Amino acid sequence: MLVLITYDVNTESEGGKKRLRKVAKQCVNYGHRVQNSVFECMLDTTQLRQLRGILEGIIDVEKDSLRYYLLGKNYKDKVIHVGVKESLNLDAPLIL
Amino acid sequence: MLVLITYDVNTESEGGKKRLRKVAKQCVNYGHRVQNSVFECMLDTTQLRQLRGILEGIIDVEKDSLRYYLLGKNYKDKVIHVGVKESLNLDAPLIL
Repeated sequence: MLVLITYDVNTESEGGKKRLRKVAKQCVNYGHRVQNSVFECMLDTTQLRQLRGILEGIIDVEKDSLRYYLLGKNYKDKVIHVGVKESLNLDAPLIL
Repeated sequence: MLVLITYDVNTESEGGKKRLRKVAKQCVNYGHRVQNSVFECMLDTTQLRQLRGILEGIIDVEKDSLRYYLLGKNYKDKVIHVGVKESLNLDAPLIL
């Protein structure tokens, strides 16, 4: 099934920047980055449980936010993309 | 239906920062911010078409990215949240 993972990690501290890098690094192992903090991962239930365990072991639940959206197997017509592909310069600071 | 909207706006220019503010401002009119660049909106097809027209009129398709995920009517068990609610300090610069 397609699982969308979005996250906000509070990077006001060095620890936060480290958590952010770790979360992204783990998500890359399981899926495809489509935006700065948005990954699309094809996972079965075991893999989802595994990845959740890893990510939720990294974040600080008091400061960070993780969201999983389960889009199922028939997701092709549920996803619309407009604009530039994820080849954005992801290292550049993105002020939100 | 629940529509998830995620976006990356390139803010390396003043124009980009303005586009980002405009996108967020429009999304707030149609839905609920759950993370910095992630909104959940309950929309019918007409509203979705309307909002798409507005957002796609704001972004620069060469620099920015907009994604819509259509989660349908039965979305409750498709969304998992872990961590802090969206009461994050959204004004603080988020270095990604």
